[in-house]
Amino acid sequence: MLIDINCDMGESFGMYELGNDEKMMKYVSTINVACGYHAGDPLVMRRTVELAKQYGINVGAHPGFPDLMGFGRRRMTATAEEVENYILYQVGALQAFLHAYDMELSHIKPHGAMYMMAMENDDLAQAVLNATEKIDKRLPLFALNNSSLARLGQEQGFNIVFEVYADREHDETGSIVMTRKGADYSDMNERARRVVRMVKEGKVITHDGKDISLKAETVCIHGDHPDAPKLAEAIITHLRNENIDIKAGFLANQTQ
Amino acid sequence: MLIDINCDMGESFGMYELGNDEKMMKYVSTINVACGYHAGDPLVMRRTVELAKQYGINVGAHPGFPDLMGFGRRRMTATAEEVENYILYQVGALQAFLHAYDMELSHIKPHGAMYMMAMENDDLAQAVLNATEKIDKRLPLFALNNSSLARLGQEQGFNIVFEVYADREHDETGSIVMTRKGADYSDMNERARRVVRMVKEGKVITHDGKDISLKAETVCIHGDHPDAPKLAEAIITHLRNENIDIKAGFLANQTQ
Amino acid sequence: MLIDINCDMGESFGMYELGNDEKMMKYVSTINVACGYHAGDPLVMRRTVELAKQYGINVGAHPGFPDLMGFGRRRMTATAEEVENYILYQVGALQAFLHAYDMELSHIKPHGAMYMMAMENDDLAQAVLNATEKIDKRLPLFALNNSSLARLGQEQGFNIVFEVYADREHDETGSIVMTRKGADYSDMNERARRVVRMVKEGKVITHDGKDISLKAETVCIHGDHPDAPKLAEAIITHLRNENIDIKAGFLANQTQ
Amino acid sequence: MLIDINCDMGESFGMYELGNDEKMMKYVSTINVACGYHAGDPLVMRRTVELAKQYGINVGAHPGFPDLMGFGRRRMTATAEEVENYILYQVGALQAFLHAYDMELSHIKPHGAMYMMAMENDDLAQAVLNATEKIDKRLPLFALNNSSLARLGQEQGFNIVFEVYADREHDETGSIVMTRKGADYSDMNERARRVVRMVKEGKVITHDGKDISLKAETVCIHGDHPDAPKLAEAIITHLRNENIDIKAGFLANQTQ
Repeated sequence: MLIDINCDMGESFGMYELGNDEKMMKYVSTINVACGYHAGDPLVMRRTVELAKQYGINVGAHPGFPDLMGFGRRRMTATAEEVENYILYQVGALQAFLHAYDMELSHIKPHGAMYMMAMENDDLAQAVLNATEKIDKRLPLFALNNSSLARLGQEQGFNIVFEVYADREHDETGSIVMTRKGADYSDMNERARRVVRMVKEGKVITHDGKDISLKAETVCIHGDHPDAPKLAEAIITHLRNENIDIKAGFLANQTQ
Repeated sequence: MLIDINCDMGESFGMYELGNDEKMMKYVSTINVACGYHAGDPLVMRRTVELAKQYGINVGAHPGFPDLMGFGRRRMTATAEEVENYILYQVGALQAFLHAYDMELSHIKPHGAMYMMAMENDDLAQAVLNATEKIDKRLPLFALNNSSLARLGQEQGFNIVFEVYADREHDETGSIVMTRKGADYSDMNERARRVVRMVKEGKVITHDGKDISLKAETVCIHGDHPDAPKLAEAIITHLRNENIDIKAGFLANQTQ
Repeated sequence: MLIDINCDMGESFGMYELGNDEKMMKYVSTINVACGYHAGDPLVMRRTVELAKQYGINVGAHPGFPDLMGFGRRRMTATAEEVENYILYQVGALQAFLHAYDMELSHIKPHGAMYMMAMENDDLAQAVLNATEKIDKRLPLFALNNSSLARLGQEQGFNIVFEVYADREHDETGSIVMTRKGADYSDMNERARRVVRMVKEGKVITHDGKDISLKAETVCIHGDHPDAPKLAEAIITHLRNENIDIKAGFLANQTQ
Repeated sequence: MLIDINCDMGESFGMYELGNDEKMMKYVSTINVACGYHAGDPLVMRRTVELAKQYGINVGAHPGFPDLMGFGRRRMTATAEEVENYILYQVGALQAFLHAYDMELSHIKPHGAMYMMAMENDDLAQAVLNATEKIDKRLPLFALNNSSLARLGQEQGFNIVFEVYADREHDETGSIVMTRKGADYSDMNERARRVVRMVKEGKVITHDGKDISLKAETVCIHGDHPDAPKLAEAIITHLRNENIDIKAGFLANQTQ
């Protein structure tokens, strides 16, 4: 059995350092690299891709809104045309760094507000699909369970990869809850067991106590919390104890 | 006989319109597209590439410094590492739009201060070469006569394309003079004859009256002056009268 | 009888020119100057303030969202804390230029999406009030009829100035309709008569044909349309024919 | 005897944290607050001013080049007009936050490349003076010994405050050396003794071993190094042992 573990990386900017990128690379199979709009800059992108090459990790694009001040977490009334072209721009930029290291883009996962809006709004979900088609229709696209993006993507023959969260609570649709409540690091084994259950049984207890089904093909762990590497380690130990390999099953040609 | 005519395009940004892009496309064989750092944004880049496709024109990248407020015309003490990665980032972004229209990048021409600095400074010239090598070493690179970029590029086997200017004066090295004096549109036939002489004889009178030799493989016309289309028309008429075709001779596979 | 006519100005940026600032200054009594977030830069702000000084026009601040690419017209889920501090920052910046010319800030009018959100959302309206109070509570604040900002501002003793639009349609609440339908320049006399009726009778026909009452203390004319100066001229002629003076009645000390 | 100790603060941006602002506030008498161009944002500026108010510390403006990606440390060929207006813009923005807390601006110290260029280039030094005059000619202006800014400022009757560095080496002109060599934290007592000698005797050993005279009215300590608070503590202990008070002697009305 396989499960992909993904982490957002390359979120530093100029003098500003963010995240524990190198520490987290030991644990994850796949990273989502910021592309200069909500975070990241060309030097950070290069360094991140180079590190991923060393660690043998898949590199996907993490395009966001042009809102460095708000870290791409603020919803904006961008048009579908804007979202489509913002994604093309940022993904293309990242591909230049990947090609410099003879690597291929593994997937696309929009960031922050752009991600959440594409989960809820058909027009923006379609914008993400249109951008992906112009890059490569076979490219895996991360999406939440029961989202606009997942539904439209599957209807149109895209390669949708269902994502769940290790450090956020889910609601009964399978979407994630944006309060910080989920990011509770006090009992890491408990959170690791949650992940194992999502992966093995396709089930999780929601933030309000319901037991729901969801599909887990990739598990996101945020890397900016100081305890993120510890949480990642706990999760991986639990997964391996269950004979689950940390690998991107959605990739035809595994790079790991 | 062939000569390439190039023009900077895609320099609008958001609500701001700049240049006479569509009008100029009728005259030129090649455009240099701003990539979002000194000018341009993803929607403008897309529109510009789409127009170039319609007009059958070559599209090159015009990466610049991250200085929208100064339009990339202010020299910055950026490091070679910064210049190399700024170019990779911007060229990659443009390539995403080109691939969306099944087009290939025709060349790279750094913009404004980045261009002039790469002409004069070996470290920055090498940074441009390093970036180009990571994209595709065969990619044509525009450079001024007797520049650092031309010399190092030729020594290292890059495809250097020598550029002269229709609307700027040259100095005795073949470089261009940054005063606005050169942009004299009063006698367009006179400027057109200058271009013909550079192309046919490889000679031009400098800003201070010397007659120098230079190699002209591509001629730049700026597109932002209201009379730029008229100047372009005059130049093309004069060139055609001499049986010189407007074509990018430096490209193995002409797209026109 | 007095009426203020206001126009957004100082929206150029770097190389990018926008609007007919100097032409419009002949017609208006008050301008709203972009402060560098959605448009404008320090050189443009200085030039705009200097022009306003020459023309004897009131200068207010036009702070917007940090979204140059979207011209501040895209709604963002900014917090009240963000809106309050974005306004303080931008208004302070403009005041430095005003003080350089011994001028005082005449009013505040948030721009674009920030303006519309403060009309509809009590928290953001309160953020605008909080920022204004920290600058000077007596400072006139432009607001639409029946808006959150107008209601909360009046309840709390702020100097609310009711704004209507010459080149946009109103809806039955007195708010404006964001389609471009209103910006119909075909019959300028018709639009001028509308303005006279709003000013004299406090009435206007809405976009869907209802006749409503509203309070008109300042009339906005957009300056970016090529025919904006002509529309302004028509409006002023009609107003003067009715013995209505173009003056900011909301200012204790008129600068004109 | 008095000496001012200053530290750059408010350099965080959005999600990005930089510096040990609150820890350093215990030690310094004066801070230089980033104003949103090279670092800082409106929320950070507000929080920094509020903290300074609590600690009873003087707040000056630290305007820089519009280069967040390079942290304002890259020299740009900005014109004198640009520098003057960039300073007005940023200082005005900071003043809005100061006024919100009933505080007055204590001084101006340009940041990074803008500071160094104003030390070496008469035109840019004059630009700084022109901006200062438009704000308040009596406003203290920090400058290095023997700099363009100090010389022109004193000739023209400005209030020049001579600055030395605790954690950087000086050269024989009294300017600072930009290598990181000076930021040697291994022997903090040694660095503290250096500061005492600059303050009491007006003498320091340069990076290449010469003993020079300089005037020390304010001592800069950088706050971004993890050991910065310790260095500050060592310096203050040594200064107090010599009966030197940490106070901005250049201010007529001390706020401490």
